[in-house]
Amino acid sequence: MEEKLKRIVEEIGPLDQEAGEQAALRQDQLTKPRGALGVLEGLSIRIAAVQGRPRPRIERKVIFTLAGDHGVAAEGVSAYPAEVTPQMVLNFLAGGAAINVLAGQVGCEVVVADLGVNYDFSPPLAPVDLKVAKGTGNLARGPAMSRAEAVRSVMAGIELVEREAGPRLDILGTGDMGIGNTTPSSAVTAVMTGRPAAEVTGRGTGLDDLGLAAKVRTIERALSINRPDPGDGLDVLAKVGGYEIGGLAGVIIGGARRRLPVVLDGFISGAAALIACSIAPRVRDYLVASHRSVEVGHQAILKHLGLKPLLNLDLRLGEGTGAALGIFLAQAAVALLNEMATFAQAGVSDRENI
Amino acid sequence: MEEKLKRIVEEIGPLDQEAGEQAALRQDQLTKPRGALGVLEGLSIRIAAVQGRPRPRIERKVIFTLAGDHGVAAEGVSAYPAEVTPQMVLNFLAGGAAINVLAGQVGCEVVVADLGVNYDFSPPLAPVDLKVAKGTGNLARGPAMSRAEAVRSVMAGIELVEREAGPRLDILGTGDMGIGNTTPSSAVTAVMTGRPAAEVTGRGTGLDDLGLAAKVRTIERALSINRPDPGDGLDVLAKVGGYEIGGLAGVIIGGARRRLPVVLDGFISGAAALIACSIAPRVRDYLVASHRSVEVGHQAILKHLGLKPLLNLDLRLGEGTGAALGIFLAQAAVALLNEMATFAQAGVSDRENI
Repeated sequence: MEEKLKRIVEEIGPLDQEAGEQAALRQDQLTKPRGALGVLEGLSIRIAAVQGRPRPRIERKVIFTLAGDHGVAAEGVSAYPAEVTPQMVLNFLAGGAAINVLAGQVGCEVVVADLGVNYDFSPPLAPVDLKVAKGTGNLARGPAMSRAEAVRSVMAGIELVEREAGPRLDILGTGDMGIGNTTPSSAVTAVMTGRPAAEVTGRGTGLDDLGLAAKVRTIERALSINRPDPGDGLDVLAKVGGYEIGGLAGVIIGGARRRLPVVLDGFISGAAALIACSIAPRVRDYLVASHRSVEVGHQAILKHLGLKPLLNLDLRLGEGTGAALGIFLAQAAVALLNEMATFAQAGVSDRENI
Repeated sequence: MEEKLKRIVEEIGPLDQEAGEQAALRQDQLTKPRGALGVLEGLSIRIAAVQGRPRPRIERKVIFTLAGDHGVAAEGVSAYPAEVTPQMVLNFLAGGAAINVLAGQVGCEVVVADLGVNYDFSPPLAPVDLKVAKGTGNLARGPAMSRAEAVRSVMAGIELVEREAGPRLDILGTGDMGIGNTTPSSAVTAVMTGRPAAEVTGRGTGLDDLGLAAKVRTIERALSINRPDPGDGLDVLAKVGGYEIGGLAGVIIGGARRRLPVVLDGFISGAAALIACSIAPRVRDYLVASHRSVEVGHQAILKHLGLKPLLNLDLRLGEGTGAALGIFLAQAAVALLNEMATFAQAGVSDRENI
């Protein structure tokens, strides 16, 4: 199966620079001072290059919210009990969570998938079943999962995108749910960015100072016991990752393979992006960082990947909530590029010296 | 007429703290860690207090894009010729401008009004006619307008909101068009914040270094010739303002009087907010800063008014483009407050110690 993953990674091509250049030329003919739409201009140009279309299209939008449980929750690293993972998955499916509301505002579908929740869902309220196992092992005491399971989680994410991209898909967002999952995300971030655990570990859903100190020690123990290889994303995922993190790495890779802009949510999605970029460095160019999370490790990820977040709203929820807002901005940027009149069309005088 | 304005200002009440507190209580019962939606939580709570509704409503949304010409354009302070003001107004009315596209994305109406454009519009492509005069006087050589004209422009903005708020209105945004209007906006900002002109003057639509230096000197001359009184917003507006700036100050005052959240666009709207807050200090609590403009004086305004912008996307277009994005975030924040399930409703376990 790892061979199959390698072949998929080889299918990811570079951006279509010509489509990007045509979009940039058009931006300069639209009725506004050049550059006056700031970040939105560059965003529209990059989406053109990602999609390979000088006039990009954003109609069908999907956020993939992947869920998994974490053995390390037993160490008391979260302010919430582990049972909240399946409870929140059911909340997503019933439409009552923040991601449902924001996706509704943006006209975006939410696909909820179970990569490793410690619960037996049953129809009609059941997520897409991609369960690798009922929660990871406790990474403070051994590997979170086997390498084969790591590959399976990534492949599951790729196949999930493939299934949704079949009918038609223009942009995707990532999202997560998993009590305890800031702990593996901090561990992944520490390994991949080479920073000490204390620098990339935050309060998650709301730890106090003692809880935070214990969480840092847990991550330090995990790193010293497991010794993940920073040059091997699958090894890092297996030893200190999580099933939904692996699934999201797959969603990212699958999106880039389909030439889709991949709008990242916050910290957990960022950890998945680190894994994805290690497995498939070309996916980097397909990534859009929707926002900067309050979670301290997220800044290290954005810096490492060279991504500038669109928003900074002190969000720290996950689920894909930041991604939904980022998809709105992407859609607005593309609409501006496609729908604004040019100086010539509108009979507006351009400045004389450009 | 100034007496009438004073009576209207007295009608502006304080925020409804009880509605805000009830909204805050509800935020803490929704299925997310407390505070995890960051700035969006506080925004929803303030909108509740503004509207006086624990469950605020954002359905009908209007952006008021006000246009005017500026005598100071004759000093070469803009990279574009003055004829672009009416040309862009026609572009707004034909639906080809950035504000039309963004308002469309947000489901927002755009009301375009002529407060002082140097052009005779004729139906069917005509803005709301609130013309005070065909452009201001050249503020580098004398007052931009008389005090009576300043009052008329503010009253026109108040009446414009009144007309639109009649049927129903839940939130409003501000926007501007006027070649040369960053010059009066910088002059207003310098007076009201007490900063030197050079600190609050930027490149507008794209001046080079020489052009910028000349613009600063023009503003310095305007301030030394006119000697506006920083304690009297109407005096500042009359001496170094503009008709659309006065109209926008009126829109802001009219919005607060109707208990509407007033979503400010960028620099020109900010200058109007300085005037509005001088005339009617209570409007300050009704203001939402949509974004931080590239234009350097905007930061001084935001600091002076104590406003934290929602977005920082390097925009510098005006028209209400930032306000449209801000209204989207306001609507999203309110939808989250109103539509998310509570812990009890969704059967999700809350953390034990809060």
